Amino acid sequence: MELLKERIKKNGKVIGEDILKVDSFLNHQIDVQLFQEIGKEFKKRFNTEKITKILTVEASGIGVACITAQYFDNVPVVFAKKYIARNLAADVYESKVFSYTKGTEYLIRVDKEYLNPDDNVLIIDDFLANGKAVAGLMDIVRQAGARVAGVGIVIEKSFQGGRTAILQENVRLESLARIQSLADGQITFVD
Amino acid sequence: MELLKERIKKNGKVIGEDILKVDSFLNHQIDVQLFQEIGKEFKKRFNTEKITKILTVEASGIGVACITAQYFDNVPVVFAKKYIARNLAADVYESKVFSYTKGTEYLIRVDKEYLNPDDNVLIIDDFLANGKAVAGLMDIVRQAGARVAGVGIVIEKSFQGGRTAILQENVRLESLARIQSLADGQITFVD
Repeated sequence: MELLKERIKKNGKVIGEDILKVDSFLNHQIDVQLFQEIGKEFKKRFNTEKITKILTVEASGIGVACITAQYFDNVPVVFAKKYIARNLAADVYESKVFSYTKGTEYLIRVDKEYLNPDDNVLIIDDFLANGKAVAGLMDIVRQAGARVAGVGIVIEKSFQGGRTAILQENVRLESLARIQSLADGQITFVD
Repeated sequence: MELLKERIKKNGKVIGEDILKVDSFLNHQIDVQLFQEIGKEFKKRFNTEKITKILTVEASGIGVACITAQYFDNVPVVFAKKYIARNLAADVYESKVFSYTKGTEYLIRVDKEYLNPDDNVLIIDDFLANGKAVAGLMDIVRQAGARVAGVGIVIEKSFQGGRTAILQENVRLESLARIQSLADGQITFVD
Protein backbone atom coordinates (compact mmCIF):
# COMPACT_ATOMS: atom_id res chain seq x y z
CA MET A 1 0.00 0.00 0.00
CA GLU A 2 1.87 3.02 -1.34
CA LEU A 3 0.26 5.67 0.88
CA LEU A 4 1.26 3.73 3.98
CA LYS A 5 4.81 3.10 2.77
CA GLU A 6 5.22 6.81 2.01
CA ARG A 7 4.03 7.62 5.50
CA ILE A 8 6.43 5.13 7.08
CA LYS A 9 9.31 6.62 5.10
CA LYS A 10 8.30 10.13 6.14
CA ASN A 11 7.51 9.59 9.84
CA GLY A 12 8.98 6.23 10.85
CA LYS A 13 11.99 6.23 13.12
CA VAL A 14 14.36 3.30 13.39
CA ILE A 15 15.60 2.42 16.86
CA GLY A 16 18.41 -0.12 16.99
CA GLU A 17 18.21 -2.92 14.45
CA ASP A 18 14.66 -4.10 14.94
CA ILE A 19 12.34 -1.39 16.25
CA LEU A 20 10.32 0.84 13.94
CA LYS A 21 8.73 3.71 15.84
CA VAL A 22 5.56 4.85 14.09
CA ASP A 23 3.73 6.25 17.05
CA SER A 24 3.06 9.57 15.33
CA PHE A 25 0.33 7.94 13.23
CA LEU A 26 -0.20 4.27 14.19
CA ASN A 27 0.04 3.34 17.84
CA HIS A 28 0.11 6.37 20.11
CA GLN A 29 -1.17 9.21 18.00
CA ILE A 30 -3.60 7.87 15.40
CA ASP A 31 -4.20 9.28 11.92
CA VAL A 32 -7.85 8.37 11.47
CA GLN A 33 -7.92 9.31 7.80
CA LEU A 34 -5.01 6.97 7.10
CA PHE A 35 -6.83 4.27 9.08
CA GLN A 36 -9.83 4.70 6.77
CA GLU A 37 -7.60 4.04 3.75
CA ILE A 38 -6.12 1.04 5.57
CA GLY A 39 -9.62 -0.26 6.28
CA LYS A 40 -10.63 0.09 2.61
CA GLU A 41 -7.47 -1.73 1.55
CA PHE A 42 -8.19 -4.66 3.92
CA LYS A 43 -11.72 -4.81 2.50
CA LYS A 44 -10.32 -4.93 -1.03
CA ARG A 45 -7.90 -7.72 -0.15
CA PHE A 46 -10.41 -9.85 1.77
CA ASN A 47 -13.33 -9.01 -0.49
CA THR A 48 -14.11 -12.63 -1.37
CA GLU A 49 -14.55 -13.57 2.28
CA LYS A 50 -17.85 -13.18 4.14
CA ILE A 51 -16.36 -11.88 7.40
CA THR A 52 -18.62 -12.08 10.47
CA LYS A 53 -16.23 -10.73 13.10
CA ILE A 54 -12.95 -8.86 13.40
CA LEU A 55 -10.64 -9.99 16.19
CA THR A 56 -7.68 -8.06 17.56
CA VAL A 57 -5.78 -7.68 20.81
CA GLU A 58 -5.55 -4.66 23.09
CA ALA A 59 -4.37 -1.99 22.92
CA SER A 60 -2.96 -0.75 19.65
CA GLY A 61 -4.97 -3.11 17.43
CA ILE A 62 -8.30 -1.70 18.57
CA GLY A 63 -8.33 1.54 16.58
CA VAL A 64 -7.46 -0.01 13.24
CA ALA A 65 -9.88 -2.90 13.86
CA CYS A 66 -12.79 -0.53 14.60
CA ILE A 67 -12.19 1.73 11.60
CA THR A 68 -11.71 -1.34 9.36
CA ALA A 69 -14.95 -2.98 10.54
CA GLN A 70 -16.88 -0.11 8.97
CA TYR A 71 -15.88 -1.38 5.52
CA PHE A 72 -17.00 -4.93 6.35
CA ASP A 73 -20.68 -4.08 6.84
CA ASN A 74 -19.98 -2.93 10.41
CA VAL A 75 -19.28 -6.44 11.72
CA PRO A 76 -18.55 -6.53 15.46
CA VAL A 77 -14.98 -6.10 16.68
CA VAL A 78 -13.76 -8.28 19.53
CA PHE A 79 -10.53 -7.43 21.27
CA ALA A 80 -8.70 -10.01 23.34
CA LYS A 81 -7.78 -8.78 26.80
CA LYS A 82 -4.24 -8.96 28.07
CA TYR A 83 -4.82 -8.19 31.70
CA ILE A 84 -7.17 -9.53 34.28
CA ALA A 85 -10.19 -7.27 34.62
CA ARG A 86 -12.61 -7.45 37.49
CA ASN A 87 -15.52 -7.61 35.08
CA LEU A 88 -14.22 -10.27 32.68
CA ALA A 89 -16.26 -13.44 32.73
CA ALA A 90 -14.71 -16.61 34.07
CA ASP A 91 -15.76 -18.49 30.97
CA VAL A 92 -13.07 -17.48 28.50
CA TYR A 93 -10.89 -18.85 25.76
CA GLU A 94 -7.30 -18.13 26.62
CA SER A 95 -3.93 -18.50 25.01
CA LYS A 96 -0.38 -17.88 26.17
CA VAL A 97 1.72 -15.33 24.29
CA PHE A 98 5.43 -14.69 24.63
CA SER A 99 6.38 -11.06 24.15
CA TYR A 100 9.88 -10.56 22.77
CA THR A 101 9.53 -6.81 23.36
CA LYS A 102 8.93 -7.23 27.06
CA GLY A 103 10.67 -10.56 27.59
CA THR A 104 7.65 -11.98 29.40
CA GLU A 105 4.74 -14.30 28.84
CA TYR A 106 1.16 -13.14 29.17
CA LEU A 107 -2.32 -14.52 28.66
CA ILE A 108 -4.82 -13.19 26.15
CA ARG A 109 -8.47 -13.92 26.76
CA VAL A 110 -11.79 -13.72 24.94
CA ASP A 111 -15.16 -14.28 26.59
CA LYS A 112 -16.71 -17.43 25.08
CA GLU A 113 -19.89 -15.51 24.33
CA TYR A 114 -18.22 -13.48 21.60
CA LEU A 115 -16.87 -16.21 19.34
CA ASN A 116 -19.07 -18.93 17.86
CA PRO A 117 -18.50 -21.95 15.65
CA ASP A 118 -20.19 -20.21 12.70
CA ASP A 119 -17.90 -17.17 12.83
CA ASN A 120 -15.57 -16.39 9.94
CA VAL A 121 -12.97 -14.25 11.66
CA LEU A 122 -10.60 -11.67 10.25
CA ILE A 123 -7.67 -11.11 12.60
CA ILE A 124 -6.30 -7.55 12.46
CA ASP A 125 -3.22 -6.14 14.17
CA ASP A 126 -0.99 -3.13 13.79
CA PHE A 127 2.34 -4.99 13.78
CA LEU A 128 3.58 -8.45 12.88
CA ALA A 129 7.02 -9.40 14.20
CA ASN A 130 7.48 -12.90 15.60
CA GLY A 131 3.79 -13.60 15.23
CA LYS A 132 3.19 -14.76 18.78
CA ALA A 133 0.18 -12.48 19.37
CA VAL A 134 -1.44 -13.54 16.08
CA ALA A 135 -0.73 -17.21 16.89
CA GLY A 136 -2.53 -16.72 20.21
CA LEU A 137 -5.51 -15.12 18.44
CA MET A 138 -5.64 -17.98 15.88
CA ASP A 139 -5.52 -20.46 18.74
CA ILE A 140 -8.49 -18.74 20.39
CA VAL A 141 -10.52 -18.73 17.15
CA ARG A 142 -9.90 -22.46 16.80
CA GLN A 143 -10.81 -23.15 20.41
CA ALA A 144 -14.15 -21.53 19.58
CA GLY A 145 -14.55 -23.88 16.62
CA ALA A 146 -14.64 -20.84 14.33
CA ARG A 147 -12.70 -20.27 11.11
CA VAL A 148 -9.79 -17.88 10.58
CA ALA A 149 -10.63 -16.16 7.31
CA GLY A 150 -7.29 -14.42 7.25
CA VAL A 151 -4.85 -12.13 9.00
CA GLY A 152 -4.55 -8.43 8.12
CA ILE A 153 -1.47 -6.59 9.33
CA VAL A 154 -0.60 -2.93 8.92
CA ILE A 155 3.19 -3.27 9.18
CA GLU A 156 5.06 -6.56 8.89
CA LYS A 157 8.67 -6.88 9.94
CA SER A 158 9.47 -9.51 7.34
CA PHE A 159 12.91 -10.22 8.77
CA GLN A 160 11.28 -11.84 11.81
CA GLY A 161 9.41 -15.13 11.94
CA GLY A 162 5.75 -14.09 11.99
CA ARG A 163 4.95 -14.47 8.28
CA THR A 164 6.37 -18.00 8.06
CA ALA A 165 4.53 -19.07 11.20
CA ILE A 166 1.17 -17.89 9.84
CA LEU A 167 1.63 -19.30 6.35
CA GLN A 168 2.59 -22.69 7.82
CA GLU A 169 -0.92 -22.80 9.29
CA ASN A 170 -2.35 -22.35 5.78
CA VAL A 171 -3.84 -19.01 6.77
CA ARG A 172 -3.99 -16.14 4.34
CA LEU A 173 -1.87 -13.18 5.39
CA GLU A 174 -2.15 -9.66 3.98
CA SER A 175 0.39 -7.15 5.25
CA LEU A 176 -0.01 -3.61 3.91
CA ALA A 177 3.65 -2.70 4.34
CA ARG A 178 6.44 -5.26 4.53
CA ILE A 179 9.76 -4.21 6.00
CA GLN A 180 12.76 -6.13 4.66
CA SER A 181 15.32 -4.57 6.96
CA LEU A 182 15.92 -1.83 9.49
CA ALA A 183 19.69 -2.26 9.42
CA ASP A 184 21.89 0.85 9.67
CA GLY A 185 18.91 3.00 10.54
CA GLN A 186 17.47 2.54 7.03
CA ILE A 187 13.92 1.39 6.29
CA THR A 188 13.95 -1.03 3.37
CA PHE A 189 10.70 -2.51 2.08
CA VAL A 190 10.26 -5.96 0.54
CA ASP A 191 10.57 -5.50 -3.26
CA MET B 1 -29.03 9.27 24.23
CA GLU B 2 -32.05 6.98 23.93
CA LEU B 3 -30.49 4.36 21.61
CA LEU B 4 -27.64 3.85 24.07
CA LYS B 5 -29.92 3.66 27.11
CA GLU B 6 -32.08 1.07 25.34
CA ARG B 7 -29.00 -0.97 24.59
CA ILE B 8 -27.79 -0.77 28.19
CA LYS B 9 -31.21 -1.91 29.40
CA LYS B 10 -31.20 -4.77 26.91
CA ASN B 11 -27.62 -6.04 27.26
CA GLY B 12 -26.16 -4.54 30.44
CA LYS B 13 -25.57 -6.84 33.37
CA VAL B 14 -25.29 -5.60 36.93
CA ILE B 15 -22.63 -7.22 39.09
CA GLY B 16 -22.78 -6.39 42.77
CA GLU B 17 -23.78 -2.82 43.61
CA ASP B 18 -21.45 -0.87 41.39
CA ILE B 19 -20.36 -2.78 38.28
CA LEU B 20 -22.22 -2.53 34.99
CA LYS B 21 -21.03 -5.14 32.53
CA VAL B 22 -21.52 -3.93 28.97
CA ASP B 23 -18.80 -5.90 27.28
CA SER B 24 -21.16 -7.29 24.66
CA PHE B 25 -21.13 -3.93 22.86
CA LEU B 26 -18.78 -1.44 24.53
CA ASN B 27 -15.51 -2.73 25.93
CA HIS B 28 -14.76 -6.27 24.82
CA GLN B 29 -17.01 -6.87 21.85
CA ILE B 30 -17.64 -3.57 20.05
CA ASP B 31 -20.77 -2.60 18.15
CA VAL B 32 -19.25 -0.33 15.52
CA GLN B 33 -22.60 0.91 14.27
CA LEU B 34 -23.57 2.01 17.79
CA PHE B 35 -20.17 3.71 18.08
CA GLN B 36 -20.95 5.69 14.92
CA GLU B 37 -24.16 6.97 16.53
CA ILE B 38 -22.19 7.77 19.70
CA GLY B 39 -19.63 9.67 17.62
CA LYS B 40 -22.37 11.70 15.90
CA GLU B 41 -23.92 12.52 19.28
CA PHE B 42 -20.59 13.75 20.67
CA LYS B 43 -20.20 15.93 17.57
CA LYS B 44 -23.67 17.36 18.11
CA ARG B 45 -22.95 18.14 21.76
CA PHE B 46 -19.52 19.69 21.18
CA ASN B 47 -20.45 21.31 17.88
CA THR B 48 -19.51 24.83 18.98
CA GLU B 49 -15.96 23.79 19.80
CA LYS B 50 -13.15 23.71 17.26
CA ILE B 51 -11.57 20.45 18.41
CA THR B 52 -8.00 19.82 17.24
CA LYS B 53 -7.34 16.51 19.00
CA ILE B 54 -9.18 13.71 20.78
CA LEU B 55 -7.44 12.27 23.84
CA THR B 56 -8.28 8.98 25.52
CA VAL B 57 -6.53 6.26 27.50
CA GLU B 58 -5.85 2.67 26.55
CA ALA B 59 -7.48 0.28 26.06
CA SER B 60 -11.25 0.54 25.95
CA GLY B 61 -11.37 4.26 25.12
CA ILE B 62 -9.51 3.80 21.84
CA GLY B 63 -12.34 2.39 19.73
CA VAL B 64 -14.90 5.02 20.60
CA ALA B 65 -12.29 7.78 20.26
CA CYS B 66 -11.30 6.64 16.74
CA ILE B 67 -14.87 6.28 15.48
CA THR B 68 -15.80 9.64 17.06
CA ALA B 69 -12.84 11.46 15.49
CA GLN B 70 -14.36 10.81 12.07
CA TYR B 71 -17.18 13.22 12.89
CA PHE B 72 -14.72 15.91 14.00
CA ASP B 73 -13.05 16.35 10.60
CA ASN B 74 -10.81 13.35 11.25
CA VAL B 75 -8.75 15.07 13.95
CA PRO B 76 -5.93 12.89 15.33
CA VAL B 77 -6.61 10.62 18.28
CA VAL B 78 -3.97 10.33 20.99
CA PHE B 79 -4.23 7.57 23.54
CA ALA B 80 -2.35 7.78 26.81
CA LYS B 81 -0.33 4.67 27.60
CA LYS B 82 -0.74 2.87 30.87
CA TYR B 83 2.23 0.58 30.77
CA ILE B 84 5.90 1.08 30.07
CA ALA B 85 6.63 0.29 26.45
CA ARG B 86 10.09 -0.24 25.04
CA ASN B 87 9.42 2.22 22.25
CA LEU B 88 7.84 5.06 24.23
CA ALA B 89 9.91 8.22 24.19
CA ALA B 90 11.53 9.38 27.40
CA ASP B 91 10.09 12.83 26.94
CA VAL B 92 6.52 12.37 28.16
CA TYR B 93 3.83 14.09 30.15
CA GLU B 94 2.75 11.75 32.90
CA SER B 95 0.12 11.65 35.59
CA LYS B 96 -0.68 9.25 38.39
CA VAL B 97 -4.07 7.52 38.41
CA PHE B 98 -5.62 5.49 41.19
CA SER B 99 -7.76 2.61 39.97
CA TYR B 100 -10.57 1.67 42.32
CA THR B 101 -11.31 -1.37 40.17
CA LYS B 102 -7.84 -2.79 40.59
CA GLY B 103 -6.92 -1.17 43.89
CA THR B 104 -3.61 0.06 42.51
CA GLU B 105 -1.97 3.21 41.23
CA TYR B 106 -0.58 3.48 37.72
CA LEU B 107 0.98 6.09 35.49
CA ILE B 108 -0.51 7.32 32.24
CA ARG B 109 1.84 8.89 29.73
CA VAL B 110 1.67 10.92 26.54
CA ASP B 111 4.68 11.70 24.36
CA LYS B 112 5.22 15.49 24.46
CA GLU B 113 5.27 15.59 20.67
CA TYR B 114 1.55 14.87 20.45
CA LEU B 115 0.09 17.65 22.58
CA ASN B 116 0.81 21.32 21.91
CA PRO B 117 -0.16 24.61 23.56
CA ASP B 118 -2.50 25.46 20.67
CA ASP B 119 -4.48 22.20 20.99
CA ASN B 120 -8.15 22.28 21.94
CA VAL B 121 -8.63 18.78 23.28
CA LEU B 122 -11.75 16.68 23.60
CA ILE B 123 -11.26 13.93 26.18
CA ILE B 124 -13.26 10.77 25.40
CA ASP B 125 -13.68 7.66 27.53
CA ASP B 126 -16.07 4.73 27.72
CA PHE B 127 -16.81 4.95 31.45
CA LEU B 128 -16.81 7.62 34.14
CA ALA B 129 -16.83 6.38 37.73
CA ASN B 130 -14.60 8.15 40.23
CA GLY B 131 -13.06 10.21 37.46
CA LYS B 132 -9.46 9.46 38.28
CA ALA B 133 -8.50 8.51 34.71
CA VAL B 134 -10.15 11.66 33.28
CA ALA B 135 -8.45 13.78 35.97
CA GLY B 136 -5.11 12.31 34.87
CA LEU B 137 -5.88 13.12 31.22
CA MET B 138 -6.91 16.70 32.11
CA ASP B 139 -3.68 17.05 34.09
CA ILE B 140 -1.68 15.96 31.04
CA VAL B 141 -3.49 18.41 28.74
CA ARG B 142 -2.68 21.22 31.14
CA GLN B 143 0.96 20.17 31.46
CA ALA B 144 1.10 20.60 27.68
CA GLY B 145 -0.33 24.10 28.03
CA ALA B 146 -3.29 23.03 25.90
CA ARG B 147 -7.01 23.58 26.58
CA VAL B 148 -9.55 20.96 27.64
CA ALA B 149 -12.53 21.68 25.38
CA GLY B 150 -14.64 19.14 27.23
CA VAL B 151 -15.07 15.58 28.37
CA GLY B 152 -17.29 13.11 26.49
CA ILE B 153 -18.28 9.93 28.31
CA VAL B 154 -20.32 7.02 26.99
CA ILE B 155 -21.60 5.75 30.37
CA GLU B 156 -21.44 7.74 33.58
CA LYS B 157 -21.98 6.10 36.96
CA SER B 158 -23.51 9.20 38.48
CA PHE B 159 -23.53 7.72 41.99
CA GLN B 160 -19.74 7.93 42.07
CA GLY B 161 -17.64 11.08 42.30
CA GLY B 162 -16.40 11.61 38.74
CA ARG B 163 -18.99 14.14 37.57
CA THR B 164 -18.49 16.44 40.57
CA ALA B 165 -14.71 16.27 40.22
CA ILE B 166 -14.83 17.33 36.55
CA LEU B 167 -17.41 20.09 37.00
CA GLN B 168 -15.37 21.54 39.87
CA GLU B 169 -12.62 22.14 37.33
CA ASN B 170 -15.06 24.18 35.22
CA VAL B 171 -14.82 21.65 32.41
CA ARG B 172 -17.83 20.79 30.28
CA LEU B 173 -18.95 17.17 30.68
CA GLU B 174 -21.28 15.34 28.32
CA SER B 175 -22.24 11.81 29.33
CA LEU B 176 -24.46 9.97 26.87
CA ALA B 177 -26.01 7.69 29.50
CA ARG B 178 -26.10 8.54 33.19
CA ILE B 179 -26.68 5.75 35.68
CA GLN B 180 -28.36 6.82 38.89
CA SER B 181 -28.13 3.47 40.64
CA LEU B 182 -27.30 -0.20 40.18
CA ALA B 183 -28.81 -1.22 43.52
CA ASP B 184 -30.67 -4.54 43.73
CA GLY B 185 -29.48 -5.53 40.28
CA GLN B 186 -31.60 -2.79 38.67
CA ILE B 187 -30.27 -0.24 36.20
CA THR B 188 -31.81 3.17 36.97
CA PHE B 189 -30.94 6.16 34.81
CA VAL B 190 -30.74 9.78 35.98
CA ASP B 191 -34.14 11.48 35.42
